[in-house]
Amino acid sequence: MGEQRDGERLERQLAFLLEADRLKTVERRTLLTDGSRRENSAEHSWHLALMALLFAEYAPGEVDRARLLTLLLVHDLVEIDAGDAYSYDPAAQVGKQEREERAARRLFGLLPADQAAAVLGWWREFEEAATPEARFAQALDRLQPVLQNFASGGVSWREHGVRRGQVAARTAMIAAEAPALGRHVALLLEQALARGWLRE
Amino acid sequence: MGEQRDGERLERQLAFLLEADRLKTVERRTLLTDGSRRENSAEHSWHLALMALLFAEYAPGEVDRARLLTLLLVHDLVEIDAGDAYSYDPAAQVGKQEREERAARRLFGLLPADQAAAVLGWWREFEEAATPEARFAQALDRLQPVLQNFASGGVSWREHGVRRGQVAARTAMIAAEAPALGRHVALLLEQALARGWLRE
Repeated sequence: MGEQRDGERLERQLAFLLEADRLKTVERRTLLTDGSRRENSAEHSWHLALMALLFAEYAPGEVDRARLLTLLLVHDLVEIDAGDAYSYDPAAQVGKQEREERAARRLFGLLPADQAAAVLGWWREFEEAATPEARFAQALDRLQPVLQNFASGGVSWREHGVRRGQVAARTAMIAAEAPALGRHVALLLEQALARGWLRE
Repeated sequence: MGEQRDGERLERQLAFLLEADRLKTVERRTLLTDGSRRENSAEHSWHLALMALLFAEYAPGEVDRARLLTLLLVHDLVEIDAGDAYSYDPAAQVGKQEREERAARRLFGLLPADQAAAVLGWWREFEEAATPEARFAQALDRLQPVLQNFASGGVSWREHGVRRGQVAARTAMIAAEAPALGRHVALLLEQALARGWLRE
């Protein structure tokens, strides 16, 4: 009986992990650095987690590394159902929260109840910026597209006619969570403006 | 002077993180679950880390979650220079260690010295299976392709005429690191053999 329950537990975990594979097919607007194709949300999540390992030192206080990595690994899973909502597309923002809530219930609900609750909790913690780790994770999530866009010639900004003020507003929190990184973003936005990659 | 050094530190970290972006273009033999394309090593690393969050409970003893995730996030970076060496291709294994050592020195050497040493240490720890976390991480790295291959119809096994005994040998360590997962792999290999996806 215990073994049967154990088997069912593993089956649920495997079903979730196979479903999670679909995050590799969710396309973001940002290009790879070499400009060869758009980035997907799974590899983006990996890149953020790697960045967190190296940039945790810029956080104003202590951050729990396991918690920070965990939040980054699960933060985009809802996009499997809800898609990636481009930050500078107002239409994509309409109804986003409801779509993502529905996605979270379906996707995390594939897991055994205790793990479903854990993943839901991590996802909410990130979304609500409820802890220092969640705020720092959000700051990195806003930093990475700026770095990636800048390195690939500002294509996704130019394609969507993005204004400097929009990016500055979206990335303002970086300066609070990691002052050195905030200064770097400000420099990049100046240069992107000068190069015509962002509009005034 | 301190600020100048800080600026140089950040520049080195950024150079490494942009270079790391190239892991998204390193192709593995395994297909995505939906069979649409081959998986890349960046999204594979993310999938492994997600799996680690859910499967850590199958480890025989306590594992440090931050350490486990860290090892998985950096374990494939050397493939940026060295490429992915398919486990069942003996030719790809020739000189692999030297190529990867060279790649590690170049890639991690982009970082500030202390972080270069840290990442090199994590990579070595994984490669040498030097700690319980590294052994568990290796077990997951051998489990994930089996799950993924099985889910996508055994294509990469069939393409390379892989024998059941080869996969059984490569995945034998899973049973030691996570008995429940080892039993599941044994079942999948039986089924793959019965379906003709693996040769006897």
